Amino acid sequence: MLENSHLYREIHEQPQVLADLLERARPAIQGLAREIQRRQIRYVMIAARGTSDNAGRYANYLLGAVNGLPVALATPSLYTIYRRPPRLTDALVLGISQSGKSPDIVSVVAEARRQGVLTAAITNEGASDLAQEADHVILLHAGEERSIAATKTYTSQLMALALLSATLADDAEMLATLEQVPDAVANQLTLNEQIGVLAQRYRYMRDCVVIGRGYNYASAFELALKLKELTYTIAEPYSSADFLHGPLALIEYGFPAIVFAPTGIMLPEMQSFISLLRQREAEAIVISDDPATLAMGRIQLPLTTPVPEWISPITAIVPGQLLAMHLAHARDYDPDHPRGLRKVTETR
Amino acid sequence: MLENSHLYREIHEQPQVLADLLERARPAIQGLAREIQRRQIRYVMIAARGTSDNAGRYANYLLGAVNGLPVALATPSLYTIYRRPPRLTDALVLGISQSGKSPDIVSVVAEARRQGVLTAAITNEGASDLAQEADHVILLHAGEERSIAATKTYTSQLMALALLSATLADDAEMLATLEQVPDAVANQLTLNEQIGVLAQRYRYMRDCVVIGRGYNYASAFELALKLKELTYTIAEPYSSADFLHGPLALIEYGFPAIVFAPTGIMLPEMQSFISLLRQREAEAIVISDDPATLAMGRIQLPLTTPVPEWISPITAIVPGQLLAMHLAHARDYDPDHPRGLRKVTETR
Repeated sequence: MLENSHLYREIHEQPQVLADLLERARPAIQGLAREIQRRQIRYVMIAARGTSDNAGRYANYLLGAVNGLPVALATPSLYTIYRRPPRLTDALVLGISQSGKSPDIVSVVAEARRQGVLTAAITNEGASDLAQEADHVILLHAGEERSIAATKTYTSQLMALALLSATLADDAEMLATLEQVPDAVANQLTLNEQIGVLAQRYRYMRDCVVIGRGYNYASAFELALKLKELTYTIAEPYSSADFLHGPLALIEYGFPAIVFAPTGIMLPEMQSFISLLRQREAEAIVISDDPATLAMGRIQLPLTTPVPEWISPITAIVPGQLLAMHLAHARDYDPDHPRGLRKVTETR
Repeated sequence: MLENSHLYREIHEQPQVLADLLERARPAIQGLAREIQRRQIRYVMIAARGTSDNAGRYANYLLGAVNGLPVALATPSLYTIYRRPPRLTDALVLGISQSGKSPDIVSVVAEARRQGVLTAAITNEGASDLAQEADHVILLHAGEERSIAATKTYTSQLMALALLSATLADDAEMLATLEQVPDAVANQLTLNEQIGVLAQRYRYMRDCVVIGRGYNYASAFELALKLKELTYTIAEPYSSADFLHGPLALIEYGFPAIVFAPTGIMLPEMQSFISLLRQREAEAIVISDDPATLAMGRIQLPLTTPVPEWISPITAIVPGQLLAMHLAHARDYDPDHPRGLRKVTETR
């Protein structure tokens, strides 16, 4: 029974996990925000792998647009293998890792601490090496994640970053918006059965692309990763702009392209991208809360509750998680134990 | 005739183009290096798309390891669509673009100039908008590139970055090494016929992954892009470390994985990755100058002239370019005009 899998349960725990995080993470986040303001932080260097790296991609847009902070994604091999780390003067170095155990991520934060730079960790494990190395620890309080594919820790990483951004901006409206997100996610989960039916259509899909831009660039990467991990679909993520610089050549009749297009400043851009896909006879699968945009797709994945664009990655990934889960089930794959993967991947 | 295509000619022009760049670009690069040293540059923000973005990935490792400079890759939509650019205080903002025409790349450099930040451009077009916006312009002197898939401008972008790094480090040995690169590339081109025969094997390959880490992370992205543009293969690039955090689940019997594994500090890491691929019965296609490493692959793409690892991306991409070109030919695709692409892609 799919409903007895850890994956199913963890996807459905998300409203509660997000509500818990909002209740419990504020003091740690306020402490970090104060320190960012006290020091002359010029940019944020994020060290993360896999799903956590996708949360870093969200931070890249959110901290940039809302807080004026440029974000760099770390290249851990400079620290671990080449042993020639860059000078991190005036950076905040932020490690993001569910387990807090990947040695390469820990190494980046440890080096930053050696250089006397401000460090922080977002993790589900308060006793992990990563938490020990960081000056500031933001705990996810998500409970143990037993499915190998991360779901509830991803949305709670996004929520922790959103809370940090809103706290840094001291923006009461943003903070109030965050309180509505757990209910919006709960609403989104009502599509479970409908997406279960839809997944049948993709039983024999071998490859696809997943497109998002701006805030939902992260969503494209995260959905592509879930499709790879859970369903072994060769799913490649792109920004719509990068896609036009070469990969567009891939598109032919019936090629599946999943597009994140929630309401917001990016919507007209995504609409013209969907038009282009249709002109080239791709199968456009549209994730949106906007009826006109949904209608442009061959297949619709509706977002049931509109939220401001900057927080939409938390709700928009949910239909993607459900699609990947049901597609794994349609293919008789074990949703909790993808072939060849372990929960904690220790790379150096 | 393949030999009459622009692509064939431009791939074969590379030794001369690189030699010309070494002769002509020094004054501009020395000017930029002096300014980087004079100002307190904390990090480099690179704005680029497509092939030029892959040159940016090389800079991420090279400027980090050799010059201690952290590198961030810009998110142009913050500047163009959201119109909420981050504060770039103490950054060097570097635009890389063959044509210098993509509006989003120009916008990032223009915003940096507005903020009073040091700006530079690496481009093949001295009269382009990008060149006009930047304080320092490094011209590629590569001659017109007429094939839509970039080859000679990619290796010359890498060379410009390597020259910048060596000049900043004031490292005579690095500068001397660069002088050997045009000959090493010429040697590599002697594999043209052999790779033409090999390409037959992949006539019906639908998808593959391309793996590199460290300096050759850029090579993995660039070869995957050439395979997509020229041959419509669904080719996904990864660092070996990121690949273990999820996508490894894709690997099954016969799945093609192209691995960059030149001699250097990263080599043992790549060897253990190739072993893992073989255990899982993937088809490992190995690009290396090391005989023992080549022998680990099911298929070998030899690097004919060993060079230091930090400059190996310039020689290592050449067999990849040849493979993509011959595979396009084996599939009866036009090597100069991939479907759906134009030479200058204007994204905002």
